[in-house]
Amino acid sequence: MRHTISVLVENKPGVLARCAGLFARRGFNIDSLAVSVTENKAVSRITLTVAGDELTLDQICKQLDKLVDVIAVLDHTNDLVVERELCLCKVAASPQQRAEVIQICNIFRGECVDVGNGTLTFEVTGDEEKIDAFVRLMKEYGIKEMVRTGKVVVPRGMQPTQQ
Amino acid sequence: MRHTISVLVENKPGVLARCAGLFARRGFNIDSLAVSVTENKAVSRITLTVAGDELTLDQICKQLDKLVDVIAVLDHTNDLVVERELCLCKVAASPQQRAEVIQICNIFRGECVDVGNGTLTFEVTGDEEKIDAFVRLMKEYGIKEMVRTGKVVVPRGMQPTQQ
Repeated sequence: MRHTISVLVENKPGVLARCAGLFARRGFNIDSLAVSVTENKAVSRITLTVAGDELTLDQICKQLDKLVDVIAVLDHTNDLVVERELCLCKVAASPQQRAEVIQICNIFRGECVDVGNGTLTFEVTGDEEKIDAFVRLMKEYGIKEMVRTGKVVVPRGMQPTQQ
Repeated sequence: MRHTISVLVENKPGVLARCAGLFARRGFNIDSLAVSVTENKAVSRITLTVAGDELTLDQICKQLDKLVDVIAVLDHTNDLVVERELCLCKVAASPQQRAEVIQICNIFRGECVDVGNGTLTFEVTGDEEKIDAFVRLMKEYGIKEMVRTGKVVVPRGMQPTQQ
């Protein structure tokens, strides 16, 4: 089962390596991970998705929580959340194909952010399934290059993550 | 000076921990990092931003390149790139303030993705400066919670990253 976990940590060198190391030692593969500062410059927020058995993952979360620079660990698996991911995708498109490819992008409410000699670069945001669907369609034209940020989540309504 | 580095790696457990460890051992703080799969499921792409002196960073990049599961390392500092970041921001807003806050979001071409009892959640994408500006404005209303993905980049035009 896929889990999405938020880890609030002190913004210091080495914290990310220690957190990632905990998963690595158990042989867990982190599918995606995004880390950046929060509204408080001293605190960073790591959002990661990982697949694995419930029990071991629960242990890893408890060990994460014990690390000195970790402030909070939250598993969002059963929460109501807004989840989003961003994808930049450079697609092969001849001048004749451009209109067609841009039309698909518009359906996904994406934006064309660059055009080159035979390429178009799109920015698309949405949940994982939406991005997957967009990428599947673009594969038919030929993806030159693609980068995804990995999922970030915020709980819906009033429920806070940071307590 | 801030550097943006792309690292293409094999999608295996432990690779991220080893890459992050290289920076940690030199005392470099990774400001943001995003990792996710690429169009090839066996390959993940790490995009990270880090500040530090040119020389040591250059050494780290060379060491990264030598790691067994690393396919390519690219420093985008002097490249022409499209850079994007996504931010989910939950802001305190009474029903009376909603219109005002949503107006600011519209100016930033953001989207309101959730509304709670006294809160609004926005999705905004753009480069780092744009997100910073948005967050600064939202601070006046009171940010309840915020998460950013960290920067991802794709070179403009035909220049490929993956070779």
